[in-house]
Amino acid sequence: MAHPTPIKTIHGQHCHHGWNHANAPVETVAPGTTLSFECQDAAGGYFTRESKAADVATMPFEHLNPVTGPIFVDGAQPGDILKVTINEFRPSGFGWTAIIPGFGLLADQFTSPDLFLWDYDSTARTPAAFGSQARIPLKPFAGTIGLAPAAEGTHSIVPPRRVGGNLDIRDLSAGSTLYLPVEVVGALFSIGDTHAAQGDGEVCGTAIESAMQVSVTLDLIKDTHLAMPRFSTPGPVTRHLDGAGYEVFTGIGPDLMTGARQAVEGAIDWLGKTRNLPAEQAYMLCSVCGDLRISEIVDAPNWVVSFYLPRVVLE
Amino acid sequence: MAHPTPIKTIHGQHCHHGWNHANAPVETVAPGTTLSFECQDAAGGYFTRESKAADVATMPFEHLNPVTGPIFVDGAQPGDILKVTINEFRPSGFGWTAIIPGFGLLADQFTSPDLFLWDYDSTARTPAAFGSQARIPLKPFAGTIGLAPAAEGTHSIVPPRRVGGNLDIRDLSAGSTLYLPVEVVGALFSIGDTHAAQGDGEVCGTAIESAMQVSVTLDLIKDTHLAMPRFSTPGPVTRHLDGAGYEVFTGIGPDLMTGARQAVEGAIDWLGKTRNLPAEQAYMLCSVCGDLRISEIVDAPNWVVSFYLPRVVLE
Repeated sequence: MAHPTPIKTIHGQHCHHGWNHANAPVETVAPGTTLSFECQDAAGGYFTRESKAADVATMPFEHLNPVTGPIFVDGAQPGDILKVTINEFRPSGFGWTAIIPGFGLLADQFTSPDLFLWDYDSTARTPAAFGSQARIPLKPFAGTIGLAPAAEGTHSIVPPRRVGGNLDIRDLSAGSTLYLPVEVVGALFSIGDTHAAQGDGEVCGTAIESAMQVSVTLDLIKDTHLAMPRFSTPGPVTRHLDGAGYEVFTGIGPDLMTGARQAVEGAIDWLGKTRNLPAEQAYMLCSVCGDLRISEIVDAPNWVVSFYLPRVVLE
Repeated sequence: MAHPTPIKTIHGQHCHHGWNHANAPVETVAPGTTLSFECQDAAGGYFTRESKAADVATMPFEHLNPVTGPIFVDGAQPGDILKVTINEFRPSGFGWTAIIPGFGLLADQFTSPDLFLWDYDSTARTPAAFGSQARIPLKPFAGTIGLAPAAEGTHSIVPPRRVGGNLDIRDLSAGSTLYLPVEVVGALFSIGDTHAAQGDGEVCGTAIESAMQVSVTLDLIKDTHLAMPRFSTPGPVTRHLDGAGYEVFTGIGPDLMTGARQAVEGAIDWLGKTRNLPAEQAYMLCSVCGDLRISEIVDAPNWVVSFYLPRVVLE
């Protein structure tokens, strides 16, 4: 697919660790500009091929999730939409997935740190090996992509907000177009937290975290109110995973969060019984490739959340 | 695909409107038996091609969601698993979708009854026309499929439970295998609430509700504890919908239910602005083809729920 050529590269050292509309812009661009962003991984390069699980405990927590930017878009005003066309990802070939104590859907059950290091083919995009147990088809995207909020002060990089941020939406991959509501003059766009693969939910709290170069085009839609971010995909979103069907696990009850937990617990239990995967490995595997879906949300008082584990990863 | 031939048909008048392990079995079968079930639609045939929205108010609420059964499976004991192989659906060609006041994800916003009647090709399975506005690819399944619970008394047919029931899982279509935990002697299997098409979530509370003949094989897996239902699909699950990509709407915040509502509201708003669809029609369209997914559930305190509207229905 032909993409516009970036007119400039924004290097990874031009980053910040919190959203604040007082952050000085790295660059000012006209609407329609294509830029290439160097994105550090979510730990800012802390993990290397020599890292161990014990290193998770000493991660630089105050500097997690650096995002490259911000970019001031000329003419952007509160009430406009920033249209972000996601052109291309150039992944590094090295990645990590961690269980970080206190973080993740089952944080109460997984209290010890764990770490898996990935080496993957950055050009051919063949599936990444999860030891001898699984192979993960890759679909790179930026976990964090957003704008500065109107509210004063510095806002944590961890939660996503109306202006985007740490959305961790797996389908914001190459070819997709994201629409973000602008809350401040210039929009102040930043991007980072690139993932080589992730399932819907990112259940253990991390994906295949991996540094990448990302090309995006920033454009402006004037005077069009948008309540929440939306995006458009040019084609199917799960064909890299769905070829062999799914093993699906449900959670049923009056609370969607509890249902999601039950569904993922079902998958971890099944991976242990049928594949001899230790629970920690199963949890990380679920996070990088399994999808949380809401099967029904209307049969009061019990909803059904389903966790879809793609069988192709186990073949 | 070759399926086992049903040895018997369980007719639609052999139905019940509540789960109770004291319900007398319609039939006793050996494990491995294939049966054909006549399933009434969720309103028991109340709606006809002449029905109007006003008729929703006088639906027979005490007799909704009839399920055909129960079937006593010889040898089934609490602690076993009933393995249900879903072989084939023969839909009637007529269906309905309703907004039922008090029911649905946005019940507070949609307080007036509405009704859409479908005529679809029951053999060729070409997409069903939603007026001139959309065409819905069909994928028939049984919304309600389950076993009698151990707890005494009659339990409402509306909520799903650990033993299944009104799961409304779109991907329990032909070729899938469902595993249900048995809680009572004989398992006491029933099935109904057949849908010609539904999106994940069934957001307005109804799908393309449609009577069908369903063939399933009931088998037994002894002494294997299962916490919650699980199922296996033989192949991809969304290829009938995904060819043209998706328009996706997000909800972001600390409550998954609120996020789901925001995401669906985004879709209804967009369908109104870009397709001139009245909100009631947009809501019903979302219910029969759009999917609710949990994009991230770990970036505390804000989760992202996304509603995927397949573009193919609008082309």
